[in-house]
Amino acid sequence: MNKTMLTDYYEFTMSEALFKDGRKDDIAVFDAFYRQHLFGLGYELMGGVDALIDFIKNIHFTDDDIRYLKEKGLYSAEFLEYLRNFKFTGSIYAVPDGTPIFPNEPIVTVVAPIIEAQIVETFILNQLNPSILFMTAARRVVDAAKNIPVMEFGARRALGMDASIIASKSAYIAGCASTSNTLVGEKYGIPISGTMAHSFVESYDNEYDAFLAYAKTHPNNCVFLVDTYDVLRSGVKNAIKVAQDYLIPNGYRLKGIRIDSGDLAYLTKEAKRMLVEANMADATICVSNGLTENEIKSLLDQGAVIDSIGLGDNIVLPDYARVGCVYKLAALYKNGDITSLIPKIKVSEAEVKTTNPSLKTIYRFYDKDTNYALGDVLALNNEIIPQEEFTFIDPNNEHRTKTITNYHVRKLQVPIFLNGKLVYHDPTIEEKRLLVNREMATLYPEIKRSVKPYPYFVDLTPDLLELKKSMIKEIKGYARVRK
Amino acid sequence: MNKTMLTDYYEFTMSEALFKDGRKDDIAVFDAFYRQHLFGLGYELMGGVDALIDFIKNIHFTDDDIRYLKEKGLYSAEFLEYLRNFKFTGSIYAVPDGTPIFPNEPIVTVVAPIIEAQIVETFILNQLNPSILFMTAARRVVDAAKNIPVMEFGARRALGMDASIIASKSAYIAGCASTSNTLVGEKYGIPISGTMAHSFVESYDNEYDAFLAYAKTHPNNCVFLVDTYDVLRSGVKNAIKVAQDYLIPNGYRLKGIRIDSGDLAYLTKEAKRMLVEANMADATICVSNGLTENEIKSLLDQGAVIDSIGLGDNIVLPDYARVGCVYKLAALYKNGDITSLIPKIKVSEAEVKTTNPSLKTIYRFYDKDTNYALGDVLALNNEIIPQEEFTFIDPNNEHRTKTITNYHVRKLQVPIFLNGKLVYHDPTIEEKRLLVNREMATLYPEIKRSVKPYPYFVDLTPDLLELKKSMIKEIKGYARVRK
Repeated sequence: MNKTMLTDYYEFTMSEALFKDGRKDDIAVFDAFYRQHLFGLGYELMGGVDALIDFIKNIHFTDDDIRYLKEKGLYSAEFLEYLRNFKFTGSIYAVPDGTPIFPNEPIVTVVAPIIEAQIVETFILNQLNPSILFMTAARRVVDAAKNIPVMEFGARRALGMDASIIASKSAYIAGCASTSNTLVGEKYGIPISGTMAHSFVESYDNEYDAFLAYAKTHPNNCVFLVDTYDVLRSGVKNAIKVAQDYLIPNGYRLKGIRIDSGDLAYLTKEAKRMLVEANMADATICVSNGLTENEIKSLLDQGAVIDSIGLGDNIVLPDYARVGCVYKLAALYKNGDITSLIPKIKVSEAEVKTTNPSLKTIYRFYDKDTNYALGDVLALNNEIIPQEEFTFIDPNNEHRTKTITNYHVRKLQVPIFLNGKLVYHDPTIEEKRLLVNREMATLYPEIKRSVKPYPYFVDLTPDLLELKKSMIKEIKGYARVRK
Repeated sequence: MNKTMLTDYYEFTMSEALFKDGRKDDIAVFDAFYRQHLFGLGYELMGGVDALIDFIKNIHFTDDDIRYLKEKGLYSAEFLEYLRNFKFTGSIYAVPDGTPIFPNEPIVTVVAPIIEAQIVETFILNQLNPSILFMTAARRVVDAAKNIPVMEFGARRALGMDASIIASKSAYIAGCASTSNTLVGEKYGIPISGTMAHSFVESYDNEYDAFLAYAKTHPNNCVFLVDTYDVLRSGVKNAIKVAQDYLIPNGYRLKGIRIDSGDLAYLTKEAKRMLVEANMADATICVSNGLTENEIKSLLDQGAVIDSIGLGDNIVLPDYARVGCVYKLAALYKNGDITSLIPKIKVSEAEVKTTNPSLKTIYRFYDKDTNYALGDVLALNNEIIPQEEFTFIDPNNEHRTKTITNYHVRKLQVPIFLNGKLVYHDPTIEEKRLLVNREMATLYPEIKRSVKPYPYFVDLTPDLLELKKSMIKEIKGYARVRK
């Protein structure tokens, strides 16, 4: 499957026009960003840099692709020949996977000959959207679960194969303990988990026989699913009985039980009591049943006895499923002359849709003592950020300011490709997993809470804000000119 | 990428237990179904049979897969050898793609040696869920748009590559006119469309120059995006001016304009007025902007002048994104003895989660005169359905009945694989597209409306209902027995 063709058709029609108009050496700066928080949340987590790297490294059109485009009859022989030799020669900067990100930040910036920059648009967005969604959704449940391990079970509920692979990988990076997705386990070396479904239990004449058969095959790994018939009156009793009749006499222990339905707060407490009475206090209790972040918190509030959580839907398809990343032109260098940057802006009636112009740098400010992130600032690329004192100005209400001292500053974007060459060493999945924990520790709890999180500052430097305002003014003026 | 490994890990642990317990020749009957309508809707459309066929035909484990599982240390050499030679030898019955379907209907039934039936579970669900979702969501907007063509633009907003491919293909089958997804255009021969983005317009010094450059390259295909600066004061004027200055003198016409923001009802009417005044009444007006079914209806109610609609989000990721297909054991034939079927049921505290037991047939009843679908009935596989008079009984309220005469009956499921052999000729995409129209014409408008659609009957025959009730009773009794 050639990913290069996963491109909106207008990328080709525009590109042919640019090509024919002699503009193929113009260098464009495009920013990928999203406009609003996922519903109710105070931060998102970056993901998809890995997919972007793989895509750009392998980008090309096959003979079949060229033939297909040729049949459309819209393209010149020269342009088709250009596509035949197509590769990515530009630069890409991105925020590393696992970093907390916020609306309107250029999480990926592509600086490339304009046709190249256009053609990569669709695939980049197609991978950023699910990666950010799954990373964020997984982290929400991981944080809600506190120290209880979360096992990701979502493959069957994901919207297709790619979604399930991205979801299982992202969930592990974001802190899940394991996945049920065997393909992802094999491909990425991620821990996999799972023992039995209701169908296994039902396929036996009774629950006891089902557990016993499983115990005989997997005596070391007996986590029995106990809610096929009745958790307390049947499931837990049969689990204990099989442990007494078979596991213990053979030198094994009951590893645990899983409860997938019913009132999990009540059932786990009662099940625990029964296990303790049977001298099986070491048996773990796993719960699952389409749990959400808030349901997990509620269970813990009620003192539910939970050793692990299995969860799929609310990672692979949470209620707030739309990240809505867009890819907008921010600047242009005509004829490849990188000494003369022309900033570009898209204005809109909807204020939230007006873009931030020019090639920008994202700076994150950290408190020197606590290492908490104090806020982010988008700056023009060549701006110098003061190191001693800085004033955040709310771009939507310039009277609201906050002056900080005692900080250090970090550039969030790193170069991924420079002039077509991969220059970034993408961390391993295990490294990214640690990175997420380090990064999450820099966010104030007020940003992370689920109820009305405090808005994190994402401001513009005075110079960038000035440029933006003057460009809006100029364009509004332009729009009124009758040609 | 080996799809066979896209399997929840518990399929392997269960399978090893069944294998070791000498049960690999047991034949299981599994039903795939969903439990509830997508939010607010009165029907869904079947999809995913094509993916299922491709998956089953190519199912196998590679040496790497076997090595990976072996490293887990849980599997016997015999079982690993069994997997090495794994193929699908069972039968699969399914409702054809494009057929209206309803909750609790077994849209796919797998009758296969139990291990085979387990291992295919995850992938089947992983493809059914997005296919049904995208087919249904696309049909909703196609119906709302009445005769106005809908162009699907969703690749960038889909959750990954597979989702975007399934979505673009499904949208076309469901009645969309074209896709922007060039890969899908190439792979399936589906019409593709698209002309320009805001970035193209912005990359020129002014809108006029951008339109003119595009016109010079694609004089036959000028659909100008007119909302980059100001639709009426700039965009439409420049579109008309480029048509006057370049297209018309060179023998071409302005094909159309696209408006992607603002008050589309007002803007389209004003734009039309301007086009008519300029003698360009033949120029079409395309609207886009994350439109929903209800927004489309509202635009038409307001008399918006719309010749085509571009739409992505609400096909690839509608608000009601969870189909939630499950895969449940319905019956078992021990040791492959197909003369003795053992029906199976999963009971649950939540009534909606209690399954319908046994191997079943779905019958759809049609009025002989109008050809409207009157209702569906799930029957035991060997039941005879009366041909003259039939009484629907609401399974949730047996006092509610409806007796019909003058009907004909159709079995909804068709054999796809029989004993491992593909016996189904999957219709082409164009054939499926026609089929959807034919099928949708059989649904009463009351089922299709968006506001509180009338519930379509999905009942059980008296024999099936009796079996279900007696099994529930028996299991409830079982659960009370202390072992």
